[in-house]
Amino acid sequence: MPAPTSGRPPSPPTEPVPTALPARVTIRDVALRDGLQIISRLVVPTATKLAWVQAAWDAGLRELEVGSFVPPKLMPQLADTAEVLAHARTLPGLHATVLVPNLRGAERAIAGEAHAMLLPISASEAHSLANLRKPRSEVVAEIARIRAARDAACSRTALEVGISTAFGCTLQGRVEDAEVVRLVQQVLDAGAERVSLADTVGYADPAQVLRLGEQVLRVAGPDRFDTMHFHDTRGLGLANCMAALQLGITRLDACVGGIGGCPHAPGASGNVATEDLAYMLASMGVATGVDFDRLMALRGRLGAWLDGEPLHGSIWRAGLPKSMRTDAQAVAA
Amino acid sequence: MPAPTSGRPPSPPTEPVPTALPARVTIRDVALRDGLQIISRLVVPTATKLAWVQAAWDAGLRELEVGSFVPPKLMPQLADTAEVLAHARTLPGLHATVLVPNLRGAERAIAGEAHAMLLPISASEAHSLANLRKPRSEVVAEIARIRAARDAACSRTALEVGISTAFGCTLQGRVEDAEVVRLVQQVLDAGAERVSLADTVGYADPAQVLRLGEQVLRVAGPDRFDTMHFHDTRGLGLANCMAALQLGITRLDACVGGIGGCPHAPGASGNVATEDLAYMLASMGVATGVDFDRLMALRGRLGAWLDGEPLHGSIWRAGLPKSMRTDAQAVAA
Repeated sequence: MPAPTSGRPPSPPTEPVPTALPARVTIRDVALRDGLQIISRLVVPTATKLAWVQAAWDAGLRELEVGSFVPPKLMPQLADTAEVLAHARTLPGLHATVLVPNLRGAERAIAGEAHAMLLPISASEAHSLANLRKPRSEVVAEIARIRAARDAACSRTALEVGISTAFGCTLQGRVEDAEVVRLVQQVLDAGAERVSLADTVGYADPAQVLRLGEQVLRVAGPDRFDTMHFHDTRGLGLANCMAALQLGITRLDACVGGIGGCPHAPGASGNVATEDLAYMLASMGVATGVDFDRLMALRGRLGAWLDGEPLHGSIWRAGLPKSMRTDAQAVAA
Repeated sequence: MPAPTSGRPPSPPTEPVPTALPARVTIRDVALRDGLQIISRLVVPTATKLAWVQAAWDAGLRELEVGSFVPPKLMPQLADTAEVLAHARTLPGLHATVLVPNLRGAERAIAGEAHAMLLPISASEAHSLANLRKPRSEVVAEIARIRAARDAACSRTALEVGISTAFGCTLQGRVEDAEVVRLVQQVLDAGAERVSLADTVGYADPAQVLRLGEQVLRVAGPDRFDTMHFHDTRGLGLANCMAALQLGITRLDACVGGIGGCPHAPGASGNVATEDLAYMLASMGVATGVDFDRLMALRGRLGAWLDGEPLHGSIWRAGLPKSMRTDAQAVAA
């Protein structure tokens, strides 16, 4: 089928290219949840997790997803989420999110005074049935119950709903934009305070991020939709983050060491690596508050903490460009 | 120094986001030059290179950089460039570029009837002196001599000048945009028919690509500036390609297997992987003419051809998304 690739179009696109990016972006490191969740062979000791939270705070990270209130039988590696959350809440300025799969999990998040609870809902009905064993409509109903419980408790725990498989699904393949937009509206109507879009299986491309993101912004507005979550499964993680920034997204999920990712693509990269994202943002002059030396120090400890689990990311191997190195790094290089 | 990352800017950027990408993009695979150049321990036999050119053509690639007319003593692994070029010229519709460091190399490119010769000039004076042992002004003068020789020979070999270290330099660090723009003007005045920008050491970020690219477009116009060349050293290769597409760039360099790259960052990724770029473009609906199965077949042969040289790229490990798989791939998965 090879078609010839000769010939250039007569002119470049006429649309202006945006050069204004957000001045400041928050990186939410989700490694303690999305990273550890997938490493089922390993239970990281609670003491190590507390040191991890501390190291992340030392590195200037101010938002962490610290765990998941799922039944301990299903994910023993996240059974200590309440303790990790309690520790995270002691660190000044640290915003702690926990994943909750249902009302029971939400009640634990509220009791633990998490700053935010993140309830995932799948844009793909097939994924919802296979993963949560519920149709999406039941998850929407659960959102309403969680919102009611939160309000009844006079809790300040924010309710974020993450639209997973928003860019495609390993089971059903394509997910239509219109389907995602419709679900976002339902989720907001049910009481979600924020929505985020997640590329759960690493299918997103930057044109899709721009196209779908713009539609969701129109429905949710920039105050309720400011977060995206990308995996680097097929190498497009940072390109997708850049597209999100061009939309005005100011909060991006990532995992230190690029852990996490998709169980359907063994051997592939995981989530966008926090250190690579921090590097891209710093290089573009976008403030994140991250201290690079300390973030690299955290990255350096992961190998031992994760018992040799494969780590990903580029900047760890390549080092910072000369123009961005601190004096100490220049001497070491 | 960790600064807090709390607080969101009041609103997203007001600039419209471009969604129109070029309908068709040419991937120029430069592995036979930029890839092999750096693997100095290995001389790939000419017969293998000819099979490689054929496999690339079979995969739908219609532009290749096939070698470099440098002295064989300096790069024995590229000593057979004339033979590889002669073979490439026999394949219908294949456009063959060769790198030429000077007039002597250009004379060989003209004699071999290359479709294009690419002369690199460094935007960094320090890099120019260290690498070519010439100041940039002497290279500009050489461009004029090459153009004169080409015209005198009534040759149809196009003269492209590649601005290397356009986004930064391992020796001098930052390279100012104004410096690059000034050099582009000089190079065009000296007789270059096309200019391209190369991120020789993997320092570029997408905001810089947009900013610098726009300035160069203003000087050179889209007919004389339609090509960029990115390395993936720090994981930003595809994000930079996306930024280039947003500018209307329609020709992107890449290396199958992500070989090539920067001698100053050992162990890091090399050039953008052809197969990852082809995947991103296909995912976004941009036509390239690439046959994915056959490109993967070529990628699969590289390991043996390159004697176990480390290969890079994501799509090789992760596979295509379900929605993009052919029937044959779906059965195999």
